[in-house]
Amino acid sequence: MNIYDITLTIAGTMPTWPGDPRVHLEKISSISNGEESNITQLSMSAHTGTHIDAPHHFINGAMTVDKVPVKTLMGRAYVKCFPNADIITAELLKTADIPPRTRRILFKTKNSDFWAKGDKDFHTDYVALSPDAATYLVKRGVKVVGVDYLSVSPYKNTKPVHQILLGAGVIVIEGLDLSEVSQGRYTLYCLPLKISGADGAPARAVLVGV
Amino acid sequence: MNIYDITLTIAGTMPTWPGDPRVHLEKISSISNGEESNITQLSMSAHTGTHIDAPHHFINGAMTVDKVPVKTLMGRAYVKCFPNADIITAELLKTADIPPRTRRILFKTKNSDFWAKGDKDFHTDYVALSPDAATYLVKRGVKVVGVDYLSVSPYKNTKPVHQILLGAGVIVIEGLDLSEVSQGRYTLYCLPLKISGADGAPARAVLVGV
Repeated sequence: MNIYDITLTIAGTMPTWPGDPRVHLEKISSISNGEESNITQLSMSAHTGTHIDAPHHFINGAMTVDKVPVKTLMGRAYVKCFPNADIITAELLKTADIPPRTRRILFKTKNSDFWAKGDKDFHTDYVALSPDAATYLVKRGVKVVGVDYLSVSPYKNTKPVHQILLGAGVIVIEGLDLSEVSQGRYTLYCLPLKISGADGAPARAVLVGV
Repeated sequence: MNIYDITLTIAGTMPTWPGDPRVHLEKISSISNGEESNITQLSMSAHTGTHIDAPHHFINGAMTVDKVPVKTLMGRAYVKCFPNADIITAELLKTADIPPRTRRILFKTKNSDFWAKGDKDFHTDYVALSPDAATYLVKRGVKVVGVDYLSVSPYKNTKPVHQILLGAGVIVIEGLDLSEVSQGRYTLYCLPLKISGADGAPARAVLVGV
């Protein structure tokens, strides 16, 4: 059984969305200072690193992250590679041989090279979905869409793709590191923190080879 | 397939370890205020709610949470109920009919009643392990120990039990809500955040009935 940890490591140096606060990790208790134990304090946006977007992120009053059933994020998933794409469009998806009845789909693009290289900069020219791709996935009955950069939408126009997916109740996973994973079928376990009333949550995401 | 979410909901009102900062959740972007999306900012100890302790928590320089292999926290687990115990001792464990080759064990005690009732107070008289129980579990080859309150050790003496377990490389899960779960065999998926160099991490924990 092959297990792939497709989660970004949370660190103060990791790239975060422009305008969001940086990750801050602080030792509030330290054995080196004579205290009994080591304790780290965390401060971060709910949309840091590998995380999920709940519908409430862009649809006010819609489902919050603590209400997303864990079984939605556990189960069969398909990784689709688009190594040369600059944007994932409906046209690209229609000819991509995505298996019938795919309910969870993760897109591996050249974005994953940023993670493989340990790049600390935020890039605005990442590969994302077009609005027509989002509409196409909703029509196909997809329930979970995962991407390998910090947004499912292009940088300069984040609203339409989020609204189409989240408005249809699709759960979005952003910030996956798919650099070690090949195209194909897996079992996904993506477990976000259960944060009361929140619009998203950092998560740990794992693929198991089938 | 029965799925049990055994995770505490992270909220500002939840009980936290005395002396640790409270959980702080803040909306830093809000659709109600005319912004494009809802974004929550989190601030909490790594040892908040349902979380894991990595060896580095009490053993300086030992394994940090980002280095704990996810497969350690995914797989067969046994839930053992001790509804009447005030402390879990080696003597109690020896007569408890724990199945041979149990590698992951979760203890359900009267602590879970606090979570079922939504109790917001921190209780110092929770049920925990005695040092001889920790030694017994290490000798049995247990690799993951889970408890249903915020520490595996008694309140007034946290060091020995943590040092015995973490010193042997056992991963500790604290703050489980086992109120809906019966004694028996399950598959555990406990996925902590992958926090660089940290002594622990909040986690989402799920049991699947086998």
